[in-house]
Amino acid sequence: MLTLMAAELFGMQEMEEIIPAAKAVEFFHNFSLIHDDLMDKAPLRRGKTTVHEKWDANIAILSGDGLLVKAYEEISKCNPVYLPATLRILSKVAMEVCEGQQLDMDYESRASLRMSEYLEMIRLKTSVLLGGALQLGAILSGANEQQQKLIYDFGENVGLAFQLQDDILDAYGDPDTFGKIVGGDIIINKKTFLLVKLMEVIEEEDLPLMQHLLNSTVDVVPTKVDDMLRLYDKYQVRKSADELKDSYTQRAFKKMEALDVPNERKAALILLANHLLVRQQ
Amino acid sequence: MLTLMAAELFGMQEMEEIIPAAKAVEFFHNFSLIHDDLMDKAPLRRGKTTVHEKWDANIAILSGDGLLVKAYEEISKCNPVYLPATLRILSKVAMEVCEGQQLDMDYESRASLRMSEYLEMIRLKTSVLLGGALQLGAILSGANEQQQKLIYDFGENVGLAFQLQDDILDAYGDPDTFGKIVGGDIIINKKTFLLVKLMEVIEEEDLPLMQHLLNSTVDVVPTKVDDMLRLYDKYQVRKSADELKDSYTQRAFKKMEALDVPNERKAALILLANHLLVRQQ
Repeated sequence: MLTLMAAELFGMQEMEEIIPAAKAVEFFHNFSLIHDDLMDKAPLRRGKTTVHEKWDANIAILSGDGLLVKAYEEISKCNPVYLPATLRILSKVAMEVCEGQQLDMDYESRASLRMSEYLEMIRLKTSVLLGGALQLGAILSGANEQQQKLIYDFGENVGLAFQLQDDILDAYGDPDTFGKIVGGDIIINKKTFLLVKLMEVIEEEDLPLMQHLLNSTVDVVPTKVDDMLRLYDKYQVRKSADELKDSYTQRAFKKMEALDVPNERKAALILLANHLLVRQQ
Repeated sequence: MLTLMAAELFGMQEMEEIIPAAKAVEFFHNFSLIHDDLMDKAPLRRGKTTVHEKWDANIAILSGDGLLVKAYEEISKCNPVYLPATLRILSKVAMEVCEGQQLDMDYESRASLRMSEYLEMIRLKTSVLLGGALQLGAILSGANEQQQKLIYDFGENVGLAFQLQDDILDAYGDPDTFGKIVGGDIIINKKTFLLVKLMEVIEEEDLPLMQHLLNSTVDVVPTKVDDMLRLYDKYQVRKSADELKDSYTQRAFKKMEALDVPNERKAALILLANHLLVRQQ
């Protein structure tokens, strides 16, 4: 959808020329979800049983592989004039998403993490795909490199803001509308922005409490989520997250503003970004 | 190497234009080996610990994914004139190899197998890559479609003959030079040409013995390999395998003969095929 919307943004009329690239993005995204879910041993995806759970690990590996190949099959149907450029973007995004997933797994077993490492990991794992999907639509609509860069940056910044919001909602979401267990990331010690930030700013006196909570399951310490939230509040890590999310959001809209296309054509993507970034809390 | 040799066959001078496609084939092949070894739980590859054994399953999945992306990155560097054609071949081969691997796994749990199913499985799993590697070299050397088809068919038939030889050697190889345990396929009831053929031609009176052997491990029936070889001998399944291998080999050489290039340029590929297909028995 992002690829198609970017093409509309740049005034593309022949949308059937964009469909293969849009399908490539969709196939690629599903490949990455199937393999990531297998690696993360996730039981559910979009409320349904994951491929490796419903079938088995080997079928998840092979159907993911097949979808990655099909992504390239689709992108190969693009206008040959733009083929080298679209291939380069798809491969760049694909390699970065794989790198992001590897970093995510590596970081799970690390005791601490620098904020710069966390931000680079979420950029690779989730944001480059939004940027790349938009850039593909721009390329195929004949946009120049400067315009391509602007729409890519818009997508990457929306992606970063979205991921920060995801971290915030997991700890502070409304249990009635969130759809997952609030505090789920805290329960499993997931290295979110909030935890990484806390580790960065926590003072000596509270270190033992934080370590105690990280070393305890909710079975042993049923107040783990509330205790950790109290630490988050004390060190205002949510405020930091909100501020950084706002900063990425503003940066995204600045990039959109700078784009050299009529404002009415920008409306749909701005609406989408607002919809994504002002979720029910 | 096959891609480079095909380019030389067609008189290509600028070998640096072929290197990206040759790297793409090499990366693709290693992707498929890493994922296949994981799916087959193989401990060794080329005498060394497999990726999932040395590291872990997730690293095998992701490094395989990364290599598949790198294969496409390399092929994207090809002469843009030929890019749609080379992409089409790489994706066709990739999808077929994945299908072959899925069939191989499906067939492991099947009680019986038609010979046509077995032959189609080995064609997909091992032979299309030889054909495709050669065709890539032909495309990039400007060979026409008829010539491309001939060199592809040469490779596919060499691949089929090679796989049959592999089945034969596993049962009849010289223990001193074979490098693996002779009878290894028999021990694990692997559905090779020999077993599929035996199942096809075996008479009523020997069915109970075959079933007994298939239901027994070598721990329980230490003569399993010898007993199965006696059944193979009685029904001359090795002779069938030799004949079919020869038939594929001859078909391969006929395709090579039909190629419209000077004979001296054919010598290297003919030598390679002979080397592959007349292994020490």
